[in-house]
Amino acid sequence: MESNRLRLEGVPLPGLPEILPGADLGRVIVEAVERAAIAIAAGDVLVIAQKVVSKAEGRLRALEDVQPKEDAKRLASKLDKDPRFVQLVLEESSEVVRAQRGVLIVRTRHGYVCANAGIDVSNVPGDAVSLLPEDPDGSARRLRAELAKLVGTAPAIVISDSFGRPWRVGQTEVAIGCAGLEPVDDQRGKVDALGRELTATLTAVADEAAAAAGLMRTKQGREAVVRLRGLERYVTESDGPGAKALLREIEEDLFR
Amino acid sequence: MESNRLRLEGVPLPGLPEILPGADLGRVIVEAVERAAIAIAAGDVLVIAQKVVSKAEGRLRALEDVQPKEDAKRLASKLDKDPRFVQLVLEESSEVVRAQRGVLIVRTRHGYVCANAGIDVSNVPGDAVSLLPEDPDGSARRLRAELAKLVGTAPAIVISDSFGRPWRVGQTEVAIGCAGLEPVDDQRGKVDALGRELTATLTAVADEAAAAAGLMRTKQGREAVVRLRGLERYVTESDGPGAKALLREIEEDLFR
Repeated sequence: MESNRLRLEGVPLPGLPEILPGADLGRVIVEAVERAAIAIAAGDVLVIAQKVVSKAEGRLRALEDVQPKEDAKRLASKLDKDPRFVQLVLEESSEVVRAQRGVLIVRTRHGYVCANAGIDVSNVPGDAVSLLPEDPDGSARRLRAELAKLVGTAPAIVISDSFGRPWRVGQTEVAIGCAGLEPVDDQRGKVDALGRELTATLTAVADEAAAAAGLMRTKQGREAVVRLRGLERYVTESDGPGAKALLREIEEDLFR
Repeated sequence: MESNRLRLEGVPLPGLPEILPGADLGRVIVEAVERAAIAIAAGDVLVIAQKVVSKAEGRLRALEDVQPKEDAKRLASKLDKDPRFVQLVLEESSEVVRAQRGVLIVRTRHGYVCANAGIDVSNVPGDAVSLLPEDPDGSARRLRAELAKLVGTAPAIVISDSFGRPWRVGQTEVAIGCAGLEPVDDQRGKVDALGRELTATLTAVADEAAAAAGLMRTKQGREAVVRLRGLERYVTESDGPGAKALLREIEEDLFR
């Protein structure tokens, strides 16, 4: 039946345990899959919340261990933020994009533009904050290889975080790392349903996958991993270019 | 089973016929649903591509009927675009946000910031271009009421379009109109899994729904309508505030 040609299915894995630094995240995910009596098949996409990847990689900092420098202190005072928090944001950033009205938007060292360099206090125990993974595409590749070893098939991996947008209210989940998924579907040069050439049509597949998974999470829950099925046409054998391909080159950024 | 608590399912309706101005879009959708032997149930969300709504509402213009004024001619020459096209963009806009390197980003009269005021030449017959609906939230409300009459239950409606983003490559689908769906899930004041208060957590549900539907479309196909199931917790009895709630107030826009 034609309506079955495409079908997207998103299923969150039930509560992962609290992830500690050094945790074997691949094994934790496989155990959650088994507990849920579901399976990981070739062509599946696992969208994994950045927070659990950061925790497993030990990307946590206790604010009490941070010594703010002068520029962090000045910025913190202007924005009414904790100077130790601002110090961490600056260390994670290559550039401050905007700092006003209590909002600190930076370009991270990876090249992502987001608030507070993605540093977050929610769902982190104690006086700690979580930083983004050092190399989220690398994290995705490692996790993919680990899962391939554990379950015998390599699902695509997307590591996602919630980012705000300049002109729209609210956050959506976007891909900050991926492996085994075509991050961008380039349809330039293809034709529309009337045979006319499409221009400027690049679909940010990895970001739409992250957003779809975002619909399946609650901040109160522990749905850190969502299995998406139905995206087989974007799943690749090789790890591919990663979410880095979603970064607009600085020289193409119209908003500098 | 806990893993069945949440489950997202997206199914595109098979090929709609070419939509002509004045088409009864509600009836066209119901007929496509029947052909696909699927159903529309309470709690479903129908994500409908802007293009078919614009066509049904007669929001098409033939470029040969457009007389460009001086400012459109100047801008067109600078950007290497058709002055008649630029004239239409300016008529649909309240403000030019950026005009450089062949890219024309405006704030539309509705308040959306996007390239070319959402005016598009693909999948439009002849020498015509399609404009965004006059009032996409109103279009969503009317379509919802019409579907309620035809099928006896009112699904939530999202009208979506593909927008680019300033710092990321590619487009994602976003909501430009909605009815019967909570467009933003405001989790401020709620607590995380560790009982700590969440700050600045507003999930753009309608945009994530549009993005999920975007994964189920091909530009070559005619998958103009995607049925999402599994978002019942965001579906409301009343039409609600619409996608207008996703517009950041101009005075809150950090990027002016």
